[in-house]
This record gives sequence, C-alpha cells and structure tokens, in this order.
Amino acid sequence: MKKLLAILFLLFPVWNSLSGQEKEKSMTDALFREALTDRTAYENLRTLCKSAPGRVTGSEAAARAVLLTRRMMEEMGLDSVYLQPVSVPRWVRGKKEEACIRSSSGEQKVSVTALGMSVGTGAGGITAGVVEVAGFSQLDSLGSKGVAGKIVFFNRPMDPALPNPFTAYGQAGDQRTQGPARAAVYGAVGVVVRSLTTALDNFPHTGVTRYAEGVPQIPAVAISTLGAGLLSRRLREDPGLSFWFRTDCMTHPEVISANVIGEIRGSHHPEQIITVGGHLDAWDPGEGAHDDGAGCIQSMEVLRLFRKLGIRPKRTLRAVMFMDEEIAQRGAAEYARQAGEKQEQHYFALESDRGALVPVAIGVSTTPEKLEKFKPLLAFFEPYGITRITAGGGGVDIAPLRRFGTPLASVIPDPQRYFDYHHSANDTFEQVNIRELQLGSAAMAALVYLVDRYDL
Amino acid sequence: MKKLLAILFLLFPVWNSLSGQEKEKSMTDALFREALTDRTAYENLRTLCKSAPGRVTGSEAAARAVLLTRRMMEEMGLDSVYLQPVSVPRWVRGKKEEACIRSSSGEQKVSVTALGMSVGTGAGGITAGVVEVAGFSQLDSLGSKGVAGKIVFFNRPMDPALPNPFTAYGQAGDQRTQGPARAAVYGAVGVVVRSLTTALDNFPHTGVTRYAEGVPQIPAVAISTLGAGLLSRRLREDPGLSFWFRTDCMTHPEVISANVIGEIRGSHHPEQIITVGGHLDAWDPGEGAHDDGAGCIQSMEVLRLFRKLGIRPKRTLRAVMFMDEEIAQRGAAEYARQAGEKQEQHYFALESDRGALVPVAIGVSTTPEKLEKFKPLLAFFEPYGITRITAGGGGVDIAPLRRFGTPLASVIPDPQRYFDYHHSANDTFEQVNIRELQLGSAAMAALVYLVDRYDL
Repeated sequence: MKKLLAILFLLFPVWNSLSGQEKEKSMTDALFREALTDRTAYENLRTLCKSAPGRVTGSEAAARAVLLTRRMMEEMGLDSVYLQPVSVPRWVRGKKEEACIRSSSGEQKVSVTALGMSVGTGAGGITAGVVEVAGFSQLDSLGSKGVAGKIVFFNRPMDPALPNPFTAYGQAGDQRTQGPARAAVYGAVGVVVRSLTTALDNFPHTGVTRYAEGVPQIPAVAISTLGAGLLSRRLREDPGLSFWFRTDCMTHPEVISANVIGEIRGSHHPEQIITVGGHLDAWDPGEGAHDDGAGCIQSMEVLRLFRKLGIRPKRTLRAVMFMDEEIAQRGAAEYARQAGEKQEQHYFALESDRGALVPVAIGVSTTPEKLEKFKPLLAFFEPYGITRITAGGGGVDIAPLRRFGTPLASVIPDPQRYFDYHHSANDTFEQVNIRELQLGSAAMAALVYLVDRYDL
Repeated sequence: MKKLLAILFLLFPVWNSLSGQEKEKSMTDALFREALTDRTAYENLRTLCKSAPGRVTGSEAAARAVLLTRRMMEEMGLDSVYLQPVSVPRWVRGKKEEACIRSSSGEQKVSVTALGMSVGTGAGGITAGVVEVAGFSQLDSLGSKGVAGKIVFFNRPMDPALPNPFTAYGQAGDQRTQGPARAAVYGAVGVVVRSLTTALDNFPHTGVTRYAEGVPQIPAVAISTLGAGLLSRRLREDPGLSFWFRTDCMTHPEVISANVIGEIRGSHHPEQIITVGGHLDAWDPGEGAHDDGAGCIQSMEVLRLFRKLGIRPKRTLRAVMFMDEEIAQRGAAEYARQAGEKQEQHYFALESDRGALVPVAIGVSTTPEKLEKFKPLLAFFEPYGITRITAGGGGVDIAPLRRFGTPLASVIPDPQRYFDYHHSANDTFEQVNIRELQLGSAAMAALVYLVDRYDL
C-alpha cells in the first residue's frame, strides 16, 4: 500500500494532467490490481466457511457468522460497523437423514436431505409406495386416487439443453418450493424431490419448501440426482416398491439474529446510500462458500479496497451481510423497512449472490434511459473479461429497495458451475478459485466507484 | 437421436422455407443441444484419464492412449480412422522425487518434481547451497562467482495482477524452459524453479526444460509455490542453508508413437481438409484432463456431433490427436510434413489446448480481411456465452500449417483457473465440469460447420 501511495504521489503531476476518463481508468485499474494481489478476502472466506459452516438462519453457526463478519469489518477501520437486529425463523435439521429403496432387487440406501422448513417424519420414518411425476399437471391428473397414501417423487430434471442453468433452475424449481404443498392436497404422505442440479452426483441439494395454508404439512426430502436415477429405474422394474425415509427436522420459535453492516461515510452526500451486499445465512449440508459466503466477503472487500486505496466516496457506502435470505428474507425486509422509516435516500444497490465464479457481465435493473448511461462504462471492464452491460440485475436481498426507485445491479458470474455446489455438501471453500473471487470483488468495487464518481 | 430426426423430418417443409441464415442457426443450435445433452465426450474423457494417466510422450501410457482414442473414433462410425506414425523422444521420470531444506530451523521436506527432459541426480541426490534469483539479469550479475557449485532457485512468481494468467505464464516461463541452461553456464550444479501457477498450493507443476548445446546438463526440478515460499523464507533466515534433492529421471532412445486421426470425407471438396485437434501426450503428475485430454475428446466430439445430426460436411473433416506436444512437437511436425508431401489443401484448422473451461471467445489467425468475414458469425455463439471473435487463434500443434496459408483458430476458454491444474497432480478428470467441456465441443463443432457451410 505504501508503495502504491508512493507511486501515486510521484505520479501526481501526471495524474492532474489526465482527462477525467483517464483518471477514472487508472483508479479502476488500481482497484483490480489491489484485489488481484491481496489475499484478505480469500482468507476471510476461509475463516467464515471453516468457523461457521452450515449457518442456517437462526442457528448457532449463523450467530457465529454475525460476530465473525462484524469483527472482520471492524478490522478494516470503517467509519462504523453495527448490527441491525431482526427476528428470524429457526428450523433445525436434527439427525442426519436416512432413506432406502425396498424393491424386488433388494434394499438400497440413497442420499437424501430434508428440504428447508419441512416437518420431520418422527423417529421411525415413513414407508410408502412411490408415484413418480414430472410435474404438477401429471400430479393433478393422477389426483387423490393415484396419490393418496403414497410418496410423490418429483423427478423432472433441470433441462441441460438450456445454455443458462439459472433458466433451467427457474423451470424446475417449483417441484421443490411447491411440490410438498401440492402433493399433500391429494393425500400424499411424503415427497421426494430430484435435486436441482444438472450434475449427476451423490450430493442431495436442499432448499426451502413452502407449505400452503389449510393443507397438511408432509415430510419432504431432496434426493441426489444419482439417487433419483436409481429410484426411477427401480420403479420401472418394480412399480410396487416401497421407499423409507427418516428425517428429524422441526421448526422452533423465532429467534433474534441480525444484518451486519459496515459503512464508509460519504464526503459530499453522506445522506445518499450505496448498498453492496450478500447474504450471511447458508444451507447446512455445506459451508456456504459460493452461496453466499463469497457474496458477503466480496461486499466487505469493496469497502476494504476503497480504504486501502484511500478513495473517499462522495456518498455513503454500506456493505450489508443480509440475514435469512434462504428462508423468509427477513433481513432484506427489515433493511428496507428501516430505510423507509428513516427516509434514507438509496442511490444505488449491488448484490452478489450467484457464486464466486468468473464475472462475465454487469446487470442493472433501472429505466432504459438510465441503463444507456451505464453502457459506456463497459470500457473500464473489458480488459478484465466483462463484456456486456445488460438490463436485469440485483438480487433477493436488495429487491425491496426497488420501491424507492433505487437502481439495482449485480456483477454477473459465469453460470455453468453454480448448481454443482448450490445448497449441497459440495459448496465448500475448496471449490472457490481465488482469482474468480478477486475479479468479482474488483468489478463490484469498480462499478460502485464509477457510479459514485460519475453521479449515475 | 431418432426423436431429433423425427422432429427434423416433421419440420422439413418449415426448414425449406427458412432463409439460409435461419437454417444455419437451427443447425448450430441443434449442435449445442446435442452436445449439452449427451455424455459420450465426458465419459470418453473419464476413460482416457483413468486408463491412461501420465501419458508422457513415448511412454506406455501414451501408447495406451493411442489405442484407446483410435477405438473411440472407430466406434463413431467415421469414414476412416488411422495412425500416423512418428518418432518421439522418450524421457522417463523413474522414482518419485524427494527434496528437503536443511537450515538452522532443521530439516523440512518440500514437494518437487523433475522438469521434463531433465537429467537425474544419481541415487544419492545432490546437496548444495542455494542462491535465489528473480530472473536472468540477476543471474548474470551474480556470475560464476555467485553461482558456481550452487543450486540456483528461480523464484519470480507469475504476476497475479495481470488479468490474463496466460500473459503471466508467458512472462515467467523462461525460468523453467531456459533456467537450467542459463544457470549451468555459471557452474551451477542444479536448478529449482518456482511452479508456474498463481495458486498457492502444494502441487509442483512440471513442464519441459531445454538444455543448450555445449553447456553441462544439470538436474532441474519444479518446487510447489508453497514450497518456494518456505525456501525463500528459510533463505532469508539462514543464507547458508543447504538444499538436497534426488531425481531418477533419464532420457532413453526414441520410440515410435503416432498421431491418431479420424475422418469424415467431404461431399463436395473431399480434397480440402479441415483439421480439429488437441494433443494426446500429457505430463505425468496428473491425468492430463485439462491439458489436453479435453482437447482430444472435444475434437473427436466435433466429428461425433456431425455424424449424430447427419451433417455431411462439404470438405473433409479430420480430428487429430497430436502426439508429443509437450516435449518436441514431433506429431505436429509430421502432420504438416505429410500434408506438404501429399500436397494436401488445408482449408481451416482449429485447436483446443487451453483446458475444458467455459468458452468465452473465438480467436482466428488470418488476414484482417478474412477476419472481418468471421465476425458476423458471432450471432450464432452469443446465446451460449461467447461474446467476441478476435484476431489470434490456433495452437502449437496446428501452427506448422500456417506455411500453407491455412487460417488457424481456437475457441478460447476463460483463462482464470487453467494454471491451477496445468502440468500438476491436480489436472484430474474430477476437475472438469461437464458443461464447460460440452460448451467447448459445441462451439468448435458450430464454428467448423459455419466455416464449411459459408466457404469462409
């Protein structure tokens, strides 16, 4: 850092003779250089993943993550670091799930994991025949006659032919979020959902399910894709097979948790706020490295980069570790509620929640006129592999700020590998490449810097 | 496949009414769809990696890989599959290398691997004091006085601040390729080179070194980056420390190996040849998955995709698994030599040798006028994440075809992770993501299809 300051000082006469655009370019290049040569963010991610893995909303690990990330920001010498308390659900997995197929070929164990917010089966588990469906229309046509007393097996894969796996996730995700509620209407006793990944692996991928009012809450698990393939084959051989699974999960009373916030005060418009955030809670089979430890760490890193390079933003820059994205989005709601109550001016918001994968684009949700103003910024990013600035950006946690007219953005990573990790035991620190993490942080910092500098 | 043919058949009237561009678009989309939904290439890569890991030029594993890939192409029902014999070097690593630092802090083992073509140390190994340098100018200024009788430790890291690690590799690579020859001039007894990766890991990354005529051949190893950091710290504490290493490698007489070639004959211009290739040999610490099993498998996959979709190319399409890219490029030389001797017309050539990582661009080495003709093709690729068609493409194996005026191209993958794997024990099948592999194959097939169809 001293070296950089020395260089900047020596360059000061040159700097002053540069055009505005050249100055901004030398500053965004300095942001990339610092991000790519410093390991703080990577080591902070290691600490978060290894000290607070499985930090499900409301858990002790989540509470640990709150304290950890607060300390990390305190060590950055920000203008203020504080907690924003929020009441969150507390769902506890309990003992590791077990399941097996009992068919004419014998008994075979398969890998399952309870869906988030699912009820448990009780100590003995449940055993029932299985009916496999590809979706709700097939379920509806089977009706109570075909479904009552059975376990419904939702087995529609994410479509691998779609170039963007997020599109495929969107198309297949209803099985997990609504499947148990829909199957219960017809008297199903349990639900098994094919994991939402295009990978063929033995990791069950969890995620939240949402029961419906007035419908029985039935136990629901995700099965690994290899397990799903096996169950489907066994069903074809022996349609009368039975499936047993045992889950120990239950929902407890709500607890108090918190969003963790760090700020650098703006020099000219401290009342205008730029939010950079990710979510701190994560599903428990893994360490929440890509989803979304990385987004939290990158958001903090934006502030560290500003501090390290001595950049004073004109507006107040806030890194927010949102709590409870995965279940009820309480952190996001509370952050926006307080923003409204305090009549804060939310100038711009940026979210990172698609993994620490190589950034390829910038997405901005704003008016078409404002979007046109963002597009010339592309020149600052192209040397680093970001080749498009497109409509559509943001994330679940900053979405409630839209009511204030805030432009919402995200640095968009390559999407191909994300669902290899998502919500599974495979989402570990070791799966994060340091350069991909660094490039994402740098791009976020550069975008925030340019938005603030150019008053976009 | 039957399903696809049925759909194409039903669509035939529609197809005929489409404009040329729409037809090509529906065909390139079909190529991507088939590649993204079929696992043949991925499973072939698994077979190659697991049945013929460590397939160094001239080794038994390389011979096994020749037979394996020939069989894979025979199973594709190509018009012809044949071997092109070529004489290659045979360098054998022998027993696993060992090394340790003996300093005032005690004795510490470190991970090393002999550089390709290095001579061995003999059974007892060598022990000497160490002189650390950042490059050749420092070496030259030390001269014989500072270097004679010592082990020279080249420790200039790949510069992490450079956005593209291939640029950093280019800037640091001379230490490995020429370091031993340069150090021997001043009487050094051995060389230790920092592994060429920006990752901090414990895998030594090997690669070829080139001795010079009339200069003693001294033993040379790569040390892992963590080991390099340790050695450098120990040297600062104790400049008089000694380093011991033992390598068992030696160069044997040349052996006959082969390029493996599969062909689909052209319908209109069978005498014009389009080459698609990768290299079959690989460094032995790993399985040669990214470097370059993937390139071979993707090249074969291009032909499989043509066959599967019933596309008859106008020109002859050849998949070539080149032998001996890593040491002496004999396969590349022989392929070009025979092309010259037989007066073959080489219309276009495409190489894949930068890992099975997500494709982001297409590079073409040709005249500026011809490059302009390629650029409108971008529209076919953008939906799949490829956002640029740029000057500069090809690879070491097809480079000799340039003398025929052949345009040389490559589908360029994202470069960030490649050197995590390159030439190390970390280059295994498990490090390959199926979708990244598939997207690369599909892009290669689509490019070849369009070049052939549009007579570019």
